Amino acid sequence: MKIGFIGLGKMGMSMVENLLDHGHEVVVYDLSHSLVEHATTRGAEGSSGPEDLIARLPEYPVIWMMVPAGDAVDGTLDALLPLLNQGSCVIDGGNSHYRDTMRRAEYASARGVHYLDVGTSGGLDGARNGACMMIGGKEEMFRNLEQLFTDLCVPDGYGYMGSSGAGHFVKMVHNGIEYGMMQAIGEGFDILETAPFDFDHKAIARVWSNGSVIRGWLMELAGQAFEKDGKLGYLSGSIADSGEGRWTIEAAMDQNVSIPVIANALFRRYRSRSEENFSDKVVAALRHEFGGHGYVSRTS
Amino acid sequence: MKIGFIGLGKMGMSMVENLLDHGHEVVVYDLSHSLVEHATTRGAEGSSGPEDLIARLPEYPVIWMMVPAGDAVDGTLDALLPLLNQGSCVIDGGNSHYRDTMRRAEYASARGVHYLDVGTSGGLDGARNGACMMIGGKEEMFRNLEQLFTDLCVPDGYGYMGSSGAGHFVKMVHNGIEYGMMQAIGEGFDILETAPFDFDHKAIARVWSNGSVIRGWLMELAGQAFEKDGKLGYLSGSIADSGEGRWTIEAAMDQNVSIPVIANALFRRYRSRSEENFSDKVVAALRHEFGGHGYVSRTS
Repeated sequence: MKIGFIGLGKMGMSMVENLLDHGHEVVVYDLSHSLVEHATTRGAEGSSGPEDLIARLPEYPVIWMMVPAGDAVDGTLDALLPLLNQGSCVIDGGNSHYRDTMRRAEYASARGVHYLDVGTSGGLDGARNGACMMIGGKEEMFRNLEQLFTDLCVPDGYGYMGSSGAGHFVKMVHNGIEYGMMQAIGEGFDILETAPFDFDHKAIARVWSNGSVIRGWLMELAGQAFEKDGKLGYLSGSIADSGEGRWTIEAAMDQNVSIPVIANALFRRYRSRSEENFSDKVVAALRHEFGGHGYVSRTS
Repeated sequence: MKIGFIGLGKMGMSMVENLLDHGHEVVVYDLSHSLVEHATTRGAEGSSGPEDLIARLPEYPVIWMMVPAGDAVDGTLDALLPLLNQGSCVIDGGNSHYRDTMRRAEYASARGVHYLDVGTSGGLDGARNGACMMIGGKEEMFRNLEQLFTDLCVPDGYGYMGSSGAGHFVKMVHNGIEYGMMQAIGEGFDILETAPFDFDHKAIARVWSNGSVIRGWLMELAGQAFEKDGKLGYLSGSIADSGEGRWTIEAAMDQNVSIPVIANALFRRYRSRSEENFSDKVVAALRHEFGGHGYVSRTS
């Protein structure tokens, strides 16, 4: 089919290439003209803005948004809606908060435009060669567009999750689990690194990737990282987060669910970003005050 | 080769069958006569005890122990050592504590007997069809017996980890990571189960098993479990542990490593075993005492 695609970041560009591979016609737009240019060299049709994009599409276009969560999604939707005929469809493939998605789906629906939320996982390799997608919105709309998901995903790698927001909710929880699993892997290698043996992390990650209970893509990626440098000397341990972890904890609090592992994984990320932490300083100060225990003086 | 095998529990029996499949001759012994009988129907040679077992093996036998961690390993080793010629080899394939393994390896070595520790992962299916093995001990001995590991494991599924205890150390950390990963998965499905959507856990586990970042064997097993019953109504949430989780935390404390996720996963298991927890009662009592907050009365 002929589809519009807005947002040509790392994930978006890879998905456009994947769509082109599967014989779709893709009209693209991005704020960056050079990214639009680049996409046209891969076989996409460029456009100069939302109006031009829609003019190049069929009467009831399908437009896939792959833009950063938050204001960019609202801004893109606001630009599109007045231009779209009733019966068009807008897809949000980003990591939006499910409550924002529920609001936007209603907003689009009030203007007669269908809205699908598609949580996408699998990293850059998945976007290019076959991803995993969790889809929310009207089931009929999902069925109409199912060929897109078949083409973009690995076999059995997509599913209809429920009404608007369900796709992004499942993606949010997916990322929460990912935080916990990654932290567990990190802690394990920390114990190996400080152990009274001289371990080869690369060899261990390889063995654990084959036949063990904890085998999976994350362990394979750990092996790839240790392949570059067994001590990971090329990076610091400062870990960013992109929102889904904290949203997962917010959802757990809304629903009165106890999630110590996912919560600790997020808090460990916060902690990872500071050389010094005020809570540590308070604990060191209290030990000194009550017991005369020494503390490490600041040198600067 | 012709090998002795002691311990025909679920893991041991599956490994004996796997060895037989690969053309090895296996002489077996277990305290349970019926398990020995059963192994002979699969093609193993039965024996009536350690002495009989060794009499049926070559001059410098290799004997694989697959018995429960702790006293059973010491007892088996004590029974074997006086009967073995110098240059024989005993393998501990169980989940022994790495410090016990270091002690036993010295003990065996003082009597001229080689000792290998083999941490084994992959569950029953792995034991039967191809496991993952982490091997410690003298590297020369590992090389001598490498064909055994090639036959018992999936491709790239075994590795030499270092001196005696290294194999069991790596297996211990593997299980610690496993605790954290499983808890993260459990917490994620708990959020889905209480969410304001009507999710199909089976479908989600299937989608997450294909193309997602968190794909792996544990997610596939979650899918299998939900296949039986989407609400897991057939079991209670009481979770046992077999020691490796607490050993991992002990090692972290020996080495001053911070492992909040693995520690929380173990503590969550302890908590899972009691309907009521005294710490919860204390907190409920304190809320009542300071703020007059209500509490749930005991009915019995």
